[in-house]
Amino acid sequence: MTKKTVAEEIKEEVDAGYNAPSNVNEIEVINTYELEEKAREVVPKGGFDYMSGASGDEFTLKQNTKAWDKKGILPRVLADVEFPETSTSIFGQDLKVPFIMSPIAAHGLAHQSKEAGTAKGIAEFGGTIMSISAYSGASFSEIEEGLKDNNRWFQIYMSKDDEMNKNIIDEAKADGATAIILTADATLSGNRDKDDHNKFVYPFGMPIVSRYLKGGAKNMSLNNIYAQSKQKISVNDVHFLKEYSGLPVFVKGIQTPEDAMAAIGAGAAGIWVSNHGGRQLDGAPGSFEALEAISKAVQGRVPIVFDSGIRRGEHIFKAIASGADIVGVGRPVLYGLALGGWKGVQSVFEYFEEDLKRVMQLAGTQTIEDIKHARLFDIK
Amino acid sequence: MTKKTVAEEIKEEVDAGYNAPSNVNEIEVINTYELEEKAREVVPKGGFDYMSGASGDEFTLKQNTKAWDKKGILPRVLADVEFPETSTSIFGQDLKVPFIMSPIAAHGLAHQSKEAGTAKGIAEFGGTIMSISAYSGASFSEIEEGLKDNNRWFQIYMSKDDEMNKNIIDEAKADGATAIILTADATLSGNRDKDDHNKFVYPFGMPIVSRYLKGGAKNMSLNNIYAQSKQKISVNDVHFLKEYSGLPVFVKGIQTPEDAMAAIGAGAAGIWVSNHGGRQLDGAPGSFEALEAISKAVQGRVPIVFDSGIRRGEHIFKAIASGADIVGVGRPVLYGLALGGWKGVQSVFEYFEEDLKRVMQLAGTQTIEDIKHARLFDIK
Amino acid sequence: MTKKTVAEEIKEEVDAGYNAPSNVNEIEVINTYELEEKAREVVPKGGFDYMSGASGDEFTLKQNTKAWDKKGILPRVLADVEFPETSTSIFGQDLKVPFIMSPIAAHGLAHQSKEAGTAKGIAEFGGTIMSISAYSGASFSEIEEGLKDNNRWFQIYMSKDDEMNKNIIDEAKADGATAIILTADATLSGNRDKDDHNKFVYPFGMPIVSRYLKGGAKNMSLNNIYAQSKQKISVNDVHFLKEYSGLPVFVKGIQTPEDAMAAIGAGAAGIWVSNHGGRQLDGAPGSFEALEAISKAVQGRVPIVFDSGIRRGEHIFKAIASGADIVGVGRPVLYGLALGGWKGVQSVFEYFEEDLKRVMQLAGTQTIEDIKHARLFDIK
Amino acid sequence: MTKKTVAEEIKEEVDAGYNAPSNVNEIEVINTYELEEKAREVVPKGGFDYMSGASGDEFTLKQNTKAWDKKGILPRVLADVEFPETSTSIFGQDLKVPFIMSPIAAHGLAHQSKEAGTAKGIAEFGGTIMSISAYSGASFSEIEEGLKDNNRWFQIYMSKDDEMNKNIIDEAKADGATAIILTADATLSGNRDKDDHNKFVYPFGMPIVSRYLKGGAKNMSLNNIYAQSKQKISVNDVHFLKEYSGLPVFVKGIQTPEDAMAAIGAGAAGIWVSNHGGRQLDGAPGSFEALEAISKAVQGRVPIVFDSGIRRGEHIFKAIASGADIVGVGRPVLYGLALGGWKGVQSVFEYFEEDLKRVMQLAGTQTIEDIKHARLFDIK
Repeated sequence: MTKKTVAEEIKEEVDAGYNAPSNVNEIEVINTYELEEKAREVVPKGGFDYMSGASGDEFTLKQNTKAWDKKGILPRVLADVEFPETSTSIFGQDLKVPFIMSPIAAHGLAHQSKEAGTAKGIAEFGGTIMSISAYSGASFSEIEEGLKDNNRWFQIYMSKDDEMNKNIIDEAKADGATAIILTADATLSGNRDKDDHNKFVYPFGMPIVSRYLKGGAKNMSLNNIYAQSKQKISVNDVHFLKEYSGLPVFVKGIQTPEDAMAAIGAGAAGIWVSNHGGRQLDGAPGSFEALEAISKAVQGRVPIVFDSGIRRGEHIFKAIASGADIVGVGRPVLYGLALGGWKGVQSVFEYFEEDLKRVMQLAGTQTIEDIKHARLFDIK
Repeated sequence: MTKKTVAEEIKEEVDAGYNAPSNVNEIEVINTYELEEKAREVVPKGGFDYMSGASGDEFTLKQNTKAWDKKGILPRVLADVEFPETSTSIFGQDLKVPFIMSPIAAHGLAHQSKEAGTAKGIAEFGGTIMSISAYSGASFSEIEEGLKDNNRWFQIYMSKDDEMNKNIIDEAKADGATAIILTADATLSGNRDKDDHNKFVYPFGMPIVSRYLKGGAKNMSLNNIYAQSKQKISVNDVHFLKEYSGLPVFVKGIQTPEDAMAAIGAGAAGIWVSNHGGRQLDGAPGSFEALEAISKAVQGRVPIVFDSGIRRGEHIFKAIASGADIVGVGRPVLYGLALGGWKGVQSVFEYFEEDLKRVMQLAGTQTIEDIKHARLFDIK
Repeated sequence: MTKKTVAEEIKEEVDAGYNAPSNVNEIEVINTYELEEKAREVVPKGGFDYMSGASGDEFTLKQNTKAWDKKGILPRVLADVEFPETSTSIFGQDLKVPFIMSPIAAHGLAHQSKEAGTAKGIAEFGGTIMSISAYSGASFSEIEEGLKDNNRWFQIYMSKDDEMNKNIIDEAKADGATAIILTADATLSGNRDKDDHNKFVYPFGMPIVSRYLKGGAKNMSLNNIYAQSKQKISVNDVHFLKEYSGLPVFVKGIQTPEDAMAAIGAGAAGIWVSNHGGRQLDGAPGSFEALEAISKAVQGRVPIVFDSGIRRGEHIFKAIASGADIVGVGRPVLYGLALGGWKGVQSVFEYFEEDLKRVMQLAGTQTIEDIKHARLFDIK
Repeated sequence: MTKKTVAEEIKEEVDAGYNAPSNVNEIEVINTYELEEKAREVVPKGGFDYMSGASGDEFTLKQNTKAWDKKGILPRVLADVEFPETSTSIFGQDLKVPFIMSPIAAHGLAHQSKEAGTAKGIAEFGGTIMSISAYSGASFSEIEEGLKDNNRWFQIYMSKDDEMNKNIIDEAKADGATAIILTADATLSGNRDKDDHNKFVYPFGMPIVSRYLKGGAKNMSLNNIYAQSKQKISVNDVHFLKEYSGLPVFVKGIQTPEDAMAAIGAGAAGIWVSNHGGRQLDGAPGSFEALEAISKAVQGRVPIVFDSGIRRGEHIFKAIASGADIVGVGRPVLYGLALGGWKGVQSVFEYFEEDLKRVMQLAGTQTIEDIKHARLFDIK
């Protein structure tokens, strides 16, 4: 009997309904790197590679974490700190912690509860924000079952047809979104070699954007999905989203001061520094490498959200000390979802909160504002 | 029975006619690094080591690819890009893509169709240029069977005897060459340790230069071939080639601004920045490391072709953003030839086109001219 | 029969009394890296991981030793040196060597003789200083059995209750401490992933601080111990310790010029540059990386003690050449204790003395003062 | 039966007379790294570790070769070069090549022919210089059997007793030495961990210095030998050697401009930049890293010899381009001696000549003087 190829195995997974984990339990989070290794064991290969993989040589993916080691946190002693406070706010919304859920497509790859599971974990943790991706595998109403009345932002992948975009925004607003995140760095898919090897297709539909994805499940490959989305993203789209939604608009995927200023000029209410977790343009710098120059250009005009590479509390600290107001966490949450459903998600959020507080104490910072004034150290 | 040495095995290959692959089929190109690994399995060892290997410690070979990681491409968003255009031109010739075939000796090591196979793949892809090496294992007429009327440039390894050089140029012109490439960096062979171990000799003749290679097949070692070629290459040769051929002359192997200016002063119509794929002077910098300073010196006086280290569309982008007008691809094409004959060659060209377009879209560049104005980011 | 988890194994060790080595013998010290590997074989895993491990990714731990390779010692020849002299002094105390014992908790993890064994090794070596940690597993009187009348400093982990602190200081003074070391960088425990995996608890009590540790042995986890200690360390504590003890006060854990100046302003008699062996704030620079800037700020106002990363005489030399007056050694001594009890400790001190003298001879430095004027070389 | 320790094995080797290779044959030198690996197989372990090993972490040993990769040679094309000329001269002695034999102790570890074998290989190659170490295992007359009338320099390890030094110099002069090399960087042995593990002792005597080594063979450990030599080397020794011998004096082991100038001030006729192959002060920079600053300080007042790390012709080129006049080769010659006796030595010298010529051709340099004016490229 001949050995099946990986692509054949994945096709079988899809045909069999894709067998994501379904257990719900608290997880012990010692660090999030280990979560990735454990998730690898329970998530079907095609899904795991999609979630954890990135584009090209995965240079940018690796740079996202290596970049942290170029800047040291200086422990400040005699700082009179006790019980560090992690609370902050954005757009008038109070947050318990300065980190939120980054938008990620297709949580159902990690767990059968899909985005609803993530949402429930976030709701139980409380005091943060769920970013809902337009490429969610769950519908707004399914997500609401988990999220209850917690804060949510909506990340749009635009259609070529603005009427459809209006339609989607209407739904997101009806669902309670308090901000729109324009995905500006993903007008097509990065060259994800692992997905190409696996001939990866999403094993389920995407209810929010299904109105503009023609052909249904047979068309759920990355290249097809992106091809049916809008490529020609420009400042006009920022303007359109702002005007039509009446909500604050983030431009996500900013890696240069020039784009940050263009986005602000077009009416963006916030800058989202991200390289999409290294999944788009390989050969780009690590996201943290790009942050400082952007922050200097923005000069506090609008808030900055940062993501791509957050794995420890130390990284949240470094990002805020380099100009971020809020930090997005992504893959580690999905790994928590895979390992423990909503309880796993909650465990991951609790881990980041505890780890950040430890770093704040040891660095001698009482508040998030103190972190913003902390000096980092160039490591050669 | 005693185990044969590698040299003995290779001698047997040669005696047996050297058993290069002969199949013709499209190949799936996920990335070109994998092509190298696959080609290793099908090409006889002596030939594969010759093609893939380089000189000395292979420091310069490795530096050719490591150098890409010193410069990041900055993804530019909100750039209003869709369907990036890769067309460009050189010396009045329109090109579909800004990359061409670099001259490489002895394609017959990779595939029985030799240079004719490469030429046919290029012809089928269309809109690019075949560089024909004087050390081709196929004759002009054999190559023409594959190339049809497509663009070609001729790379000369000069004889010590200028009458023979005139003779060769006459033939190349008769064959339709529209430019002459003077190989200035290979007046003798680099110290290729693998070839020395293998006691590598070319398993077939070189019809174009056979008029000045004495001794025939018995003399087909690297050192002998180079010894019978001309060592004393100077600006006089640039002048001679220009005057005699009436064609634009490239000087290939330029790694310094000084040599670029000298070549231009001697009448070169183009500069070819290359370190011969790391095969000549080991301990030289990566070719990409040398490009920027040369481009600044040349200031657009003549076009710059760049090669040595191109493995992804990302690299083509980075080279053009650093001053190259046209990029040459070499080894990846030979691996494609080895794996699929002319169809494999075509697949490799198509891969580069698609991958470059993806990078252009994600980097926010609509045209080749836009790439030239893109800013790279120093990665530490 | 199911395999025991590491945590179960460690629990058994604790229940069984924790089986530390007890043999006493000289050891051959070729280098201290090998001592670590040998100690790994004889110390129970929970204890070894605690001693050798550090926080987070252990980035800072690794940086502590990698940092040495960024600065080269320049061998100075024709320097007319013979029999280099390692004697120095601090606060009027003459020292045979410029290195002392750094404070470390719980030596009993390494050897049944606990701190008394370390103290005896130091006493036999003579002419240096024992730092006694408040988290010692031995009492002052037990330590005195080994230490006899040798120099000692006392490292305090402060209680939230100053009366208890006074009480502890009274005892330390009665015991003969000639300086107080304020632990300013450990107001809670670093995120020590290995200890978390092992569910590490100290297998014995801490007599010096037991007055403020509630719950006894059941409470001997790192987090509990730190939680019961004082977090809000400030310049007031420096002032308090100085005034109450009447002794010179070091502030330990300084990594910035700012903190050094604050400590001096608050009355510190010495600065102790340290990152706690990489055990506290991971993501901090290597301790040696931080030294030079601090030394430049302090400008000799008070002496500087340096620790975190000393493994060879070469490192002692580099630290002194970069501004340290005295160097603390830590883990290597514990490994010596584990491998040979007090004789092992003595062997380690003798090794450092011999190795430092060799470096001094080869670097052309006759005295410690000469080292201070030696020029280091930036290695790229 | 218990397994023997390495130290026991080496003791047996010594007791059995130390079984060095004795075969004499040409060897194929593809590169000298491979020679090291082959020599490892034929030289007794104690001897091989002594020859190939270095001090401490072997950081400086590794840096000696890594340093080459920080500077790239720029291939210069159109340079009109053919048949590069490697001839040069020093102190009026004509040399065929710009490299000579560095002084090394105890060649008998590599081959039974001892220094006489090396000398004969050098004599057969011709046109270079044999440096004879005072720690030679062969006597002057034994060496003369191989060396015939070829050039030789004598490297002195000074005795504490100047009368003995005069006596040795008298003999060296009588033997025909045309320069004296003062070993200034080895007043005691580096901390060679491998030798310590092996409890290495020289398995034979040292006839030249036996007059001041007390105790004979039983005392042939490194530490004992160095202890009986002179430690207090100063400018007085340079003066003494110059005055007494009337010969040009090199100071060997220079790594700083300051020492170079001091040596010249004391009458040195040449500077020998070396870190003793990484065998003395570990933690020092790579020897090549130190060269440029020294050359700039010396400004051609006296010739500079460079060693420590030469493995390829490329390295000879880089050293000369950075200010060396002559380059010393060491370990590779010993490996050649081990593998083929005097014929192996000759093969290694021929390899370096051929490899240097290849580099000169490809770099576009016709003469040694041209190399001195070549520009290197900083590699990041």
